[in-house]
Amino acid sequence: MNDTLRISDIERAAERLRGVLHATPLDRSATFSAMSGAEIYLKYEHLQKTGSFKIRGAYNKLCELKEAGEVAEVVAASAGNHAQGVAFASAKLGISATIVMPKSTPLVKVKATEGYGANVVLAGDSYDDAYEASVKICEERGAVFIHPFNDLSVVAGQGTIGHDILKALPNVDVIFIPAGGGGLLAGTAFYLKNINPRIKIIGVQAEGADAISQSFKAKSKISTPNVSTIADGIAVKSPGDLTLGLINKYVDDVVTVSDAEISSAILNLLERCKQVVEPAGASSLAAALRAGEEYRGKRCVCLLSGGNIDVGFIHRIIEIGLVARGRKLKFKTVLPDVPGSLEKFSHICSENQANIVQVQYDRMSAELDPQEVILHVACEVSDSNHALRVTNALEKAGYKVIKE
Amino acid sequence: MNDTLRISDIERAAERLRGVLHATPLDRSATFSAMSGAEIYLKYEHLQKTGSFKIRGAYNKLCELKEAGEVAEVVAASAGNHAQGVAFASAKLGISATIVMPKSTPLVKVKATEGYGANVVLAGDSYDDAYEASVKICEERGAVFIHPFNDLSVVAGQGTIGHDILKALPNVDVIFIPAGGGGLLAGTAFYLKNINPRIKIIGVQAEGADAISQSFKAKSKISTPNVSTIADGIAVKSPGDLTLGLINKYVDDVVTVSDAEISSAILNLLERCKQVVEPAGASSLAAALRAGEEYRGKRCVCLLSGGNIDVGFIHRIIEIGLVARGRKLKFKTVLPDVPGSLEKFSHICSENQANIVQVQYDRMSAELDPQEVILHVACEVSDSNHALRVTNALEKAGYKVIKE
Repeated sequence: MNDTLRISDIERAAERLRGVLHATPLDRSATFSAMSGAEIYLKYEHLQKTGSFKIRGAYNKLCELKEAGEVAEVVAASAGNHAQGVAFASAKLGISATIVMPKSTPLVKVKATEGYGANVVLAGDSYDDAYEASVKICEERGAVFIHPFNDLSVVAGQGTIGHDILKALPNVDVIFIPAGGGGLLAGTAFYLKNINPRIKIIGVQAEGADAISQSFKAKSKISTPNVSTIADGIAVKSPGDLTLGLINKYVDDVVTVSDAEISSAILNLLERCKQVVEPAGASSLAAALRAGEEYRGKRCVCLLSGGNIDVGFIHRIIEIGLVARGRKLKFKTVLPDVPGSLEKFSHICSENQANIVQVQYDRMSAELDPQEVILHVACEVSDSNHALRVTNALEKAGYKVIKE
Repeated sequence: MNDTLRISDIERAAERLRGVLHATPLDRSATFSAMSGAEIYLKYEHLQKTGSFKIRGAYNKLCELKEAGEVAEVVAASAGNHAQGVAFASAKLGISATIVMPKSTPLVKVKATEGYGANVVLAGDSYDDAYEASVKICEERGAVFIHPFNDLSVVAGQGTIGHDILKALPNVDVIFIPAGGGGLLAGTAFYLKNINPRIKIIGVQAEGADAISQSFKAKSKISTPNVSTIADGIAVKSPGDLTLGLINKYVDDVVTVSDAEISSAILNLLERCKQVVEPAGASSLAAALRAGEEYRGKRCVCLLSGGNIDVGFIHRIIEIGLVARGRKLKFKTVLPDVPGSLEKFSHICSENQANIVQVQYDRMSAELDPQEVILHVACEVSDSNHALRVTNALEKAGYKVIKE
């Protein structure tokens, strides 16, 4: 590949990927369309092989290396979707792959990457350490480093998703695309704007990792010293020069969404679409739901770019969501410090179908009379109306209910 | 429809459903094939409109009523998927619908059913009460009662899923089908066995709700006095006479799976397929994974019959799964009852990347010296190896670690 991207590069990439990767669905969502007023379509790229779009760029890059001549080994630094993309692609093409991951990488991710046949090396405490180690390995062994985004062959591979979207929905109006290093955004924007400049391209970043958003506004490269977001897939401090050049030229706007908006989008996708989407992937939907009225009646595609989310993390997101929706009732109350007082109290809870999941006694409060005890309670209720019924019943029975 | 089911009834039902319902995907799962040795295919019926297969039977039944003449109102008793199926179908066909639900039905289910345009009546404390109330409404108003399974028009509608599976995978060997009242199992078995008797049909029930399994073995109708399973969608005390007749004739075997196996299947579907499936729907996969070796190399379809699972319940399933996989480390230890002892202890946890999520002091144990205190601890760790590293570090520092 030469130093400028051409439409034919993306078309050739799409050819290479055909039959190797899944043709992931693009479906209209009645639920989200009703919520936003826009016509919301979801591109289910979280169902792609390896669980994310990253395989597109990795596979295209490795095909080019192979077509250009003998390539013995490739090396990548990643604890995430790029690792699995490179591992899968190299196995498919019979190229040896070494993936360098930080030492703190959970065993399950190491195993998944090894499962695709790659050799995993654990090095250093951060991504930066792993990156340095991977560069060293390349120098020592003459292996080729596969950059996760700042490489036009990778960008061309990611851009094939624009090609797929256009085929499935030729009259698309707006596309929301998650952006971290910018490979997916750059490739997709380049392809679509060249085919049809009427299509509006919106990059989406997390508020706590907005280097591309800042760079886009400043029209020059800005790196952020830190990143802080639940969307690990797009938590990049420093975007690519190649990707930024394309983004500045072809993207209409870059917006940011909060972690709370991303969490809410993940929960909505779980409940309403029965889909597990990772935070970076759900950011596109979060942006579309926030924009809502601005695109009333427009056909908006939200690119759900990946689904690799830890179950422990889903657990946390649901927990927060349940409290926010009034499904968990937390309060403290005062009981007389005598036998039978917990029974009396819990009887009222059970009569009102509140399922107690936590109680804690506190005898050490300065506010208390000696014959009293504070009880901290958490119950499961079916909704905020139910919570209100439980609270009213307790108050009617003489308990003071102080929400916590 | 007359009193015997014909292949043409199912073909006509499939005609009626075409374009109204989703053509849900049937995909091979590389993950589950590798786990079991069989060729595992998943029928994604949890992505059907209203989130389950129930819409197939309800829509077919209502079409027949409408074709047969004027029908003013239909009534159903259900707090689950049948409610939404009847509500959706009646709205689509311009028939007035009343759904009777037990009073304890969560508001979110009431709203979902009302959202499809149905009139919801809350009556009684159990399904049986709601059923009685719905029969009374039918008598008073001359409305037609829509039975969830013991009705050949409903059975014919559910059987269309066999038609769809055969079209997508003509050389299928085995199909695992969840069974509660038996409508889905009866309709699908009838259709497939008539088209190709070589296809093996396995009904799947929960261990705690196995009336069809018992009836199938006894070759006579057995009802169970109680049901106890997390799989609410197939928790039926008494199967239908019509469905049992077909099941006895056309089904090869009826197996049962435990709630633990169902939970594990749900967690696997979340993690590996990025899909949210309800317990009844995941029971088919649980059965296939248990059978594994028996069907080595065979093309086995697991019917994921529905996806309507409460997020609070997903939360619980993940919680149990995390503990089972060693992702939560729970233990107690003894600390000296002096300032600084929690700091020292928690320093070792943090040095070893264990995230403390719960601590509780216990000064009231008879085993304790007066200058000691018991600490109950829960931490998040990335896997069982990590848990072992944390435990070893604590023991090396002199803490006794007693697992809880």
